[in-house]
Amino acid sequence: MNYKYANRIERVKPSAIRELLKLGADPSIISFGGGYPDPEIFPIEKLRKVYDQVLQEEGRLALQYTGTEGLMALREKLVNRVKQIGISCCVDNLFIIQGGQQGLDLAAKAFIDKGDIIITENPTFLGALAAFNPYEPEYVGVSMDEDGMRMDELEAALQKHPNVKLIYTVPEFQNPTGVTMSLERRKTLVELANKHNVVIVEDSPYREIRYEGEDLPSIKSFDTEGRVIHIGSFSKILSPGLRLGWLIADRALAEKLSLLKMASDTQNSTLNMYAVNRFMDMYDLDEHIVHIRETYKHKKELMFQTLHEAFPKSVAYTNPQGGLFTWLTFPQHIDTKILMQERSLPIAKVGYVPGESFFPNIQEKNHCRINYSYMSEENIIRGITNLGKLVQEIC
Amino acid sequence: MNYKYANRIERVKPSAIRELLKLGADPSIISFGGGYPDPEIFPIEKLRKVYDQVLQEEGRLALQYTGTEGLMALREKLVNRVKQIGISCCVDNLFIIQGGQQGLDLAAKAFIDKGDIIITENPTFLGALAAFNPYEPEYVGVSMDEDGMRMDELEAALQKHPNVKLIYTVPEFQNPTGVTMSLERRKTLVELANKHNVVIVEDSPYREIRYEGEDLPSIKSFDTEGRVIHIGSFSKILSPGLRLGWLIADRALAEKLSLLKMASDTQNSTLNMYAVNRFMDMYDLDEHIVHIRETYKHKKELMFQTLHEAFPKSVAYTNPQGGLFTWLTFPQHIDTKILMQERSLPIAKVGYVPGESFFPNIQEKNHCRINYSYMSEENIIRGITNLGKLVQEIC
Repeated sequence: MNYKYANRIERVKPSAIRELLKLGADPSIISFGGGYPDPEIFPIEKLRKVYDQVLQEEGRLALQYTGTEGLMALREKLVNRVKQIGISCCVDNLFIIQGGQQGLDLAAKAFIDKGDIIITENPTFLGALAAFNPYEPEYVGVSMDEDGMRMDELEAALQKHPNVKLIYTVPEFQNPTGVTMSLERRKTLVELANKHNVVIVEDSPYREIRYEGEDLPSIKSFDTEGRVIHIGSFSKILSPGLRLGWLIADRALAEKLSLLKMASDTQNSTLNMYAVNRFMDMYDLDEHIVHIRETYKHKKELMFQTLHEAFPKSVAYTNPQGGLFTWLTFPQHIDTKILMQERSLPIAKVGYVPGESFFPNIQEKNHCRINYSYMSEENIIRGITNLGKLVQEIC
Repeated sequence: MNYKYANRIERVKPSAIRELLKLGADPSIISFGGGYPDPEIFPIEKLRKVYDQVLQEEGRLALQYTGTEGLMALREKLVNRVKQIGISCCVDNLFIIQGGQQGLDLAAKAFIDKGDIIITENPTFLGALAAFNPYEPEYVGVSMDEDGMRMDELEAALQKHPNVKLIYTVPEFQNPTGVTMSLERRKTLVELANKHNVVIVEDSPYREIRYEGEDLPSIKSFDTEGRVIHIGSFSKILSPGLRLGWLIADRALAEKLSLLKMASDTQNSTLNMYAVNRFMDMYDLDEHIVHIRETYKHKKELMFQTLHEAFPKSVAYTNPQGGLFTWLTFPQHIDTKILMQERSLPIAKVGYVPGESFFPNIQEKNHCRINYSYMSEENIIRGITNLGKLVQEIC
């Protein structure tokens, strides 16, 4: 039949990138494409104990419905935990979400009417564009340098566009570039948002995966007017397969957002919330995160050493202090999507994410995102070496 | 700050009912309000074995990301399972959702522009109204009799309103009335939808909880044009705390809907999908469902016997052949919300859901929904007896 879809469906399309990444699922391909954690670091034995105890001792509660905002004990732990990053809040400000992605959907659902503007970093997380698109926003991309989003450009954008509703940022080890926003810019960002009455969405899934440099206070910690929505996630620090994250906002806003969550999916998995709560009772999550940091630091160094040896000087790459990704910039004439389709996948047997889909408006072709958390050390060396050979031929 | 919300937020309000139900969380209250399964029937020991084995044998996969559509082995099992209800489909037609509720959100997100019409049963599931409201539909409610939605009224509504996008129905043991749509009407419904080019959302969370009468084929089984979205759920047949359901649609439509799911929350819990898949390998889900049916049949009979003894003849109630609810109709002058607030909660210490919020347009005040799955046998007798005494005084 000929479906009479809503207008927003025009903005919902499978990306060519997604199709390419499906090719990358071929087991003979070494894929640097996904944003997967290293499965070696999942605390499987600990989680076995945790699920066993939760089901034995609290099974009737853990398998039942619970409130939309999520398990109170877990929310209390998170309220306590975010004090470390300068966020002072109470349980009324924090609720559990289905991974960070749901926070992006809820923020756009709450604020975006067709044609409203979302300011993003340029490039930005493509999953955020996917979450926002059904609400039919327009985008303004703001350039980044090594200190993150450029504040002069942001100010100009805010002055030019009166209908900006949201500023979206991944302030630590940004997806896709790996860049971290400086302390000074975090403060300026909040000042500019105050001046122009705009809401900031601070998406921080990677912030605890830092292996160099100093932790910075969250953007939310500078928020005096209740205009920052802070989003955190257990996906990178424990397991993405549990689908648990958290959202922090001013009380009135948090209430609206949790009503939208109730409408969307009622609640998160009760069992998984009980399990993560108990994991944090029985084990030291911070100790586990230290282990993750060490593992990724080592993998990153291995990848950078191999990039240095295998790639021509004409290819630049960012040097992140944490997170999972680096961002490669090729000479202008290289189209990384064509490179992947015609040579990298079929010849070098290596996958990555071509950079173009990370740009909200003008898609630059000569970048790609490379992940170093998921592949084994052996495959990092082999994959980057093979890709390097191929790149040497064309750069 | 003064948030510049999207227009749709005007439609997102905490209901007075929700506030009343929070009072019902007081442990001294016997609450017939929720739609909770009996926690006594959760197969806790079996699930302990299942989670233990999944984590031991497949932990690295089960804790990792997976595709938006969900675990292939589980989708294959469900494709097989729905053959029993006359649905012939393949894995491309079926994906896993975050409980039935998410299916309702996705359907409205795909089809509803502001002002489009959704036809619902009158009364209808209030969670569906909550899911649909943010997309700013108008509603047309169609009366029900003991065979479900009245087809003469539906046809008149379709003729009168050219911009109907969806017909929403809970065909078995409807929430809130407990009524089941007859075979004849299922066929007629599809014919009318074909004639007027409208999509049907068939929400079937209760269909396997039948303890009297014959199973009926699903509405989807009569769909020759790909216009029925069928939604099923593990919440009532296994556990709501796992948040797993499934959605079946024509291939092109299923692809759009799963793209919307990806945008909303990436995917369901991988671990819970592995666990349910293994549960179905290790144990007989149908045998478990037989046990649920027996339990609820007994509780329903107990409640009906008590209603019969304790309530005046002026209060009518539906006699469902399955599911979790009956629907009480009081004399016209009784407002069940005021009754609950002023007498039932404070005096009888009994909660229920006042009927008004189940009506999309004109809210009838003299009904309430009573759940019989959750409370213990003792509390069913005590609660209904106490409520009956109170009702005797005023009817």
